[in-house]
Amino acid sequence: MAKSITPREKDYSQWYIDIVKNAELAENSAVRGCMVIKPYGYAIWEKMRDALDKMFKDTGHVNAYFPLFIPKSFFCREADHVEGFAKECAVVTHYRLKNDPNGGVMVDPDAKLEEELIVRPTSETIIWDTYRNWIQSYRDLPILCNQWANVVRWEMRTRLFLRTAEFLWQEGHTAHATKEEAIAETEQMLNVYADFAEKHMAVPVIKGVKSPNERFAGALDTYCIEAMMQDGKALQAGTSHFLGQNFAKAFDVKFLSKENKLEYVWATSWGVSTRLIGALIMSHSDDNGLVLPPMLAPLQVVIVPIYKEVEQLDAIKAKMEPVIKALKAKNITVKLDDDDSRRSGWKFNEYEMKGVPVRIAVGPRDLENNQVEIARRDTLEKQTISFENLDLYIEKLLEDIQNNIYNKALQFREQTTRKADTWEEFTQQLDLGGFVSAHWDGTPETEDAIKEKTKATIRCIPLNNRLEEGKCILTGKPSTQRVLFARAY
Amino acid sequence: MAKSITPREKDYSQWYIDIVKNAELAENSAVRGCMVIKPYGYAIWEKMRDALDKMFKDTGHVNAYFPLFIPKSFFCREADHVEGFAKECAVVTHYRLKNDPNGGVMVDPDAKLEEELIVRPTSETIIWDTYRNWIQSYRDLPILCNQWANVVRWEMRTRLFLRTAEFLWQEGHTAHATKEEAIAETEQMLNVYADFAEKHMAVPVIKGVKSPNERFAGALDTYCIEAMMQDGKALQAGTSHFLGQNFAKAFDVKFLSKENKLEYVWATSWGVSTRLIGALIMSHSDDNGLVLPPMLAPLQVVIVPIYKEVEQLDAIKAKMEPVIKALKAKNITVKLDDDDSRRSGWKFNEYEMKGVPVRIAVGPRDLENNQVEIARRDTLEKQTISFENLDLYIEKLLEDIQNNIYNKALQFREQTTRKADTWEEFTQQLDLGGFVSAHWDGTPETEDAIKEKTKATIRCIPLNNRLEEGKCILTGKPSTQRVLFARAY
Repeated sequence: MAKSITPREKDYSQWYIDIVKNAELAENSAVRGCMVIKPYGYAIWEKMRDALDKMFKDTGHVNAYFPLFIPKSFFCREADHVEGFAKECAVVTHYRLKNDPNGGVMVDPDAKLEEELIVRPTSETIIWDTYRNWIQSYRDLPILCNQWANVVRWEMRTRLFLRTAEFLWQEGHTAHATKEEAIAETEQMLNVYADFAEKHMAVPVIKGVKSPNERFAGALDTYCIEAMMQDGKALQAGTSHFLGQNFAKAFDVKFLSKENKLEYVWATSWGVSTRLIGALIMSHSDDNGLVLPPMLAPLQVVIVPIYKEVEQLDAIKAKMEPVIKALKAKNITVKLDDDDSRRSGWKFNEYEMKGVPVRIAVGPRDLENNQVEIARRDTLEKQTISFENLDLYIEKLLEDIQNNIYNKALQFREQTTRKADTWEEFTQQLDLGGFVSAHWDGTPETEDAIKEKTKATIRCIPLNNRLEEGKCILTGKPSTQRVLFARAY
Repeated sequence: MAKSITPREKDYSQWYIDIVKNAELAENSAVRGCMVIKPYGYAIWEKMRDALDKMFKDTGHVNAYFPLFIPKSFFCREADHVEGFAKECAVVTHYRLKNDPNGGVMVDPDAKLEEELIVRPTSETIIWDTYRNWIQSYRDLPILCNQWANVVRWEMRTRLFLRTAEFLWQEGHTAHATKEEAIAETEQMLNVYADFAEKHMAVPVIKGVKSPNERFAGALDTYCIEAMMQDGKALQAGTSHFLGQNFAKAFDVKFLSKENKLEYVWATSWGVSTRLIGALIMSHSDDNGLVLPPMLAPLQVVIVPIYKEVEQLDAIKAKMEPVIKALKAKNITVKLDDDDSRRSGWKFNEYEMKGVPVRIAVGPRDLENNQVEIARRDTLEKQTISFENLDLYIEKLLEDIQNNIYNKALQFREQTTRKADTWEEFTQQLDLGGFVSAHWDGTPETEDAIKEKTKATIRCIPLNNRLEEGKCILTGKPSTQRVLFARAY
């Protein structure tokens, strides 16, 4: 039985759920808000992780691992941070169970922790407590550490990949001798994220800084990349924070400068998470299932043999073998699916659902004609292609697909980014979906009021924004630049 | 100031601590029992993880991710499992903090979970609860999943890498249609672990099965690899469990067989952890610091230029550049350390401490003579080597070092494995350290009694053990085979 998907037009939210389920990416677990990332979903995450990890290492970073638990008191050290993070979190209070006289097991009241432990929602506090011992002089700086880890935030309304109680991410935490160096690092990592989103995920992003309301709890500045989903809602895909000396002061991390003066250390942190898989799905997929950029597809090319007799299958395999070999030599992942318990129609649906970029069908008549049928997942177009230099054709096709889905997403974003100069225009355009570029008077109060009236937030103040005189869309007060509003995930 | 290490002879335990600290592998954190894995230690773990991950994938396994938290009631479903695991663990009881009127934050009593969550000590229960929905028919089998994750066991006495409250590991969880297939999987993964230990870690291991006392809680059979440390204590380096149908029954996981009958699924699980880093240290290192097998060394070759003038440094760099390029082309990691804030004597000590397998020193006179000085870390021998084909020489040297440290460890184990036929021999030999091969009457009571008297346990019953009539070392009762005893980590 073919799996079916609710069309986007009908119910976008159900469409998303159907894709995640039918492409076998993830599912809800027995634990509220925690997901199981299934093998196919995890394979996409591995590709993302490996590409990002290489980019981090190429920019001089190293990986390390810090504890899962954070003492409760650590959160109170940085005043803004505790407001932002310490509230909705998983709290470990005991370290032992015992047999329950009524059957089963119960928490042992004698095993209560003196100080409760928080399951990390983010690791600035425990890491800066550690850095205090690593840093004495300017010669110990910079520290450029990254951590791949699981974190927990007790979200009330969860959605697979987009918002879950537990999720996987990476968090970079760097320590610098000067403010300038820390800001340069913050910007560098924003650029790494933007490159990754655009080149690997084929998701165009806008680089910007957050308004104070949307800033990370404890940061002086939060840089972000913002992407536009197919339903016209924005999604924050990555953030890079300039933390100033806030955490150094909270955890008393000082260094002896070249000038022999004791100074507080400057900090950054930056992260992306499994949320990116949600962004990937909502940027490219269609009513037939997942569409994956070739660079992140666990399987890039699938070959479906069409045959009745086993001799036919053998002939197809023999013919395809050198092609498979040539593709593998180019680091292209390819599989010939000879599972005879599945019909080829079922296979076509299945690989379409899973977003395999290129599907090759080949039967006895194709062999005679020295050709194959190639279907590309992004456009669903089919073409008959000669065997000659088939590997080169496929290599080129994968590049085309990668570029095409990026351009399609870019075009969509450009078409759905609009300027508004009056409140009426602003609200109408928000209802159309997409980014609305509008003037804002720069105050948190106005941003709050706009959010309350429209559910839209300032997604970012784009980097290198053009300065332009104008009037705030809500208050009419003077403004020096437009900012990007949108409803968001 | 040179870092110093307590000699093994003087205090083995302090020697271990000194190595972990001075080679910058890990340190204790602010959270009791939880370690910080420092960048150099984590780089070794990454090399282990990547090699193992490839071996798992080459044997048909895929990765997935399951929740960190396990509902308390899940542990009670498998009777042996709860006894083994649910006792000393981190228990999450609340999901929110609130401002404390006395300052800081406190646990919000209104945010108590209905059912407590356990931070996973191992994931059989949550995974088999998930598999129930993944498995309907024989066509859904086998499932061959692995997970890389953090786990928590509330250990009272902790030791960096060897026993920590939180540690990193992988846990494979497979589901099969038949008993035979599950046993074959259990044995296959034991062989994967043994290959990894011997070929990558250069640590010889004995493959065997555990006695019932030492079996994994919930397993029908636990296979293990056992290694011998330099102080004569054994270390369990990996385990592979045949779980029978225990977890399938506990979580009601049945499948429709080819014969159209509903049957319970057969299971295995297998894991290795960051404990392997402890095994690595204690197998090869010496009183000068860490000794790493080249295959797991984050940096395999370091070049230390000896110079006074900057022109000399430039000449050395120019001369070494083609060598560095040639080594990199062979996937050998190499660094020329031109940090002029450190003296070369300091560098020599530092790289020796960190176990870099090959150190090249090169100065102006070496350039004149077209040679370099090469020091190998394992034997500390130095040799003068011509520039000609230097890359080939180094490639071969790395292989030699890998083999040499394996052979050294093997020889040590063979020298410290002894047969005992009387109780007196047995206790004397245990005091010498190493494995003692002795007869045992096969009862848990006798094993307990021996443990009580000597602190030694049965490390394993070696696979393909020779059958041999004999008398139990303690009770004198008849025995059919010798087993391996040792004191252990």
